[in-house]
Amino acid sequence: MSYPEKFQGIGITNREDWKHPKKVTFEPKQFNDKDVDIKIEACGVCGSDVHCAASHWGPVAEKQVVGHEIIGRVLKVGPKCTTGIKVGDRVGVGAQAWSCLECSRCKSDNESYCPKSVWTYSIPYIDGYVSQGGYASHIRLHEHFAIPIPDKLSNELAAPLLCGGITVYSPLLRNGCGPGKKVGIVGIGGIGHMGLLFAKGMGAEVYAFSRTHSKEADAKKLGADHFIATLEDKDWTTKYFDTLDLLVICASSLTDINFDELTKIMKVNTKIISISAPAADEVLTLKPFGLIGVTIGNSAIGSRREIEHLLNFVAEKDIKPWVETLPVGEAGVNEAFERMDKGDVKYRFTLVDFDKEFGN
Amino acid sequence: MSYPEKFQGIGITNREDWKHPKKVTFEPKQFNDKDVDIKIEACGVCGSDVHCAASHWGPVAEKQVVGHEIIGRVLKVGPKCTTGIKVGDRVGVGAQAWSCLECSRCKSDNESYCPKSVWTYSIPYIDGYVSQGGYASHIRLHEHFAIPIPDKLSNELAAPLLCGGITVYSPLLRNGCGPGKKVGIVGIGGIGHMGLLFAKGMGAEVYAFSRTHSKEADAKKLGADHFIATLEDKDWTTKYFDTLDLLVICASSLTDINFDELTKIMKVNTKIISISAPAADEVLTLKPFGLIGVTIGNSAIGSRREIEHLLNFVAEKDIKPWVETLPVGEAGVNEAFERMDKGDVKYRFTLVDFDKEFGN
Repeated sequence: MSYPEKFQGIGITNREDWKHPKKVTFEPKQFNDKDVDIKIEACGVCGSDVHCAASHWGPVAEKQVVGHEIIGRVLKVGPKCTTGIKVGDRVGVGAQAWSCLECSRCKSDNESYCPKSVWTYSIPYIDGYVSQGGYASHIRLHEHFAIPIPDKLSNELAAPLLCGGITVYSPLLRNGCGPGKKVGIVGIGGIGHMGLLFAKGMGAEVYAFSRTHSKEADAKKLGADHFIATLEDKDWTTKYFDTLDLLVICASSLTDINFDELTKIMKVNTKIISISAPAADEVLTLKPFGLIGVTIGNSAIGSRREIEHLLNFVAEKDIKPWVETLPVGEAGVNEAFERMDKGDVKYRFTLVDFDKEFGN
Repeated sequence: MSYPEKFQGIGITNREDWKHPKKVTFEPKQFNDKDVDIKIEACGVCGSDVHCAASHWGPVAEKQVVGHEIIGRVLKVGPKCTTGIKVGDRVGVGAQAWSCLECSRCKSDNESYCPKSVWTYSIPYIDGYVSQGGYASHIRLHEHFAIPIPDKLSNELAAPLLCGGITVYSPLLRNGCGPGKKVGIVGIGGIGHMGLLFAKGMGAEVYAFSRTHSKEADAKKLGADHFIATLEDKDWTTKYFDTLDLLVICASSLTDINFDELTKIMKVNTKIISISAPAADEVLTLKPFGLIGVTIGNSAIGSRREIEHLLNFVAEKDIKPWVETLPVGEAGVNEAFERMDKGDVKYRFTLVDFDKEFGN
């Protein structure tokens, strides 16, 4: 593996025409003593990639490369690395590239809630360098955020675990999903379909919620014991009154969610956790009376320790997300963006063939 | 004690002039086999009484009597009562007068979340009778909601525990308030001042939040270890970043609360519980990003078992809410309403002298 001065990627060069990113060359960030360089082999396509590329979270930067479900091989290890990471290791990178690792949140396995967090793309590091994502030849980042991938997992199935997967796994893990618990997943898409797989794998009785019955067969194959079509079924809030111990909302927006209805099916003193990363200007309006007896909140990805836990859990239980591969490159990323934007994916894309696009 | 055909109370006779209620006579509800009649000796004045009387929750009914922090003596016991309640017992009645006692919520000590709940005043029973509150000579209701008062507690100090007290005690109890925990109380008023007393009594490190420093001395006397004036102190979200294990909001409205700031001082995966009963049309507007890592919800009073727990806790710890007594009657209720409406109470009123107003 040769060592590059510059990295290549598929980046947004025209904000208006964000669905047609172009091949670009960019400077890597400064190499710090605890950084590693990774040659990328695969990268999942996350809904956040589309939000960022489409400037939903603010105007996207020139030549911005997105992608934060990265699998690759370690090419270089900084002199002060201490995690045991070695050149040649296969590692994964999720949505976080840096945190202070010194604050109380970082020290309590809550680094994804560190206020100094740098996300994997589109966020300035303290020196002003704006992070670049994984639709690229390489990535350079702090070793803490490069996590070993178990041998048993393929690149294309491991990639979506690193953001989409951990995002739904963390609230399941933190809130007691397991045998004897009744757990709901709202929104059967890229993240929600993994939510069904994981909740079932963790031993819960699983309730899938979608607006219509169109995904019922898929949901049941994925592990749902019950399927509720919220727009088509009648009296579901009566039928399932006081039922769930935990509900994770994986819908892309919260504005369609009727919290006054959902709270009826929750047991008292339980949680509704949203994992959505909606447009920055989205505002949720709630009647406080609607939340009586239940709490709601937002969860954000997960810690390194939780990602390790997820990777081992998926390997051990032989859980397989439903993934379609696309070749990385201008055409492949265009197809991914076009189809993600219209919801034409069941249920996750992983970009592959990085060698063909970016060379060995 | 003579047995009345009709009950007397101080009721709203003119919606526009709700602050001047009049002495009224009203029919009691039908006496059912599990009902008890109680001759009232004292009744706390709750913020909800003002909301109801002022038609904040919809137009108040003709001759509506409010009050749901009731202490009295049992006058009659229905033939099918099974709680052991006896004529002559001193009992308390809180904000709930009935629930089905058959659903999963009722059977799991969550009867205050029963969807068939009848609150102590202004709510129709299944037969259409609209419940009448405790600014009255008597109340008739299901034995489950008449709870024995420990001998050690005086009428005037026990009364406010039955709604205001249990409302803040329940979320503290359910969410682990105790030694080693850092617990915040927002809003130092009728309920919040009891929140400080209870959280301290439960062994937590207590953080009081108010808009200004005006109540700091009181808060510290009540048990606060820390006092934060959210409008006057600088950098408090930095100083107290990632600090609290639980925060209970006792403010009368949530619209002034800046959740984007409050969430910063919460540890990850903790709860913010509001106990407010705001106007029915109040809507809470949140940015979903503001709730990252924290959940928020609303709590509603507490169960019979929790009220028993609170009464015993207060008796055992010799906790004394700060209560000013007023004589029941047109003048006393008028004074209570006027002063509650302008916040001139430190921190709770109990109406007394029921014998003088309504006779023996």
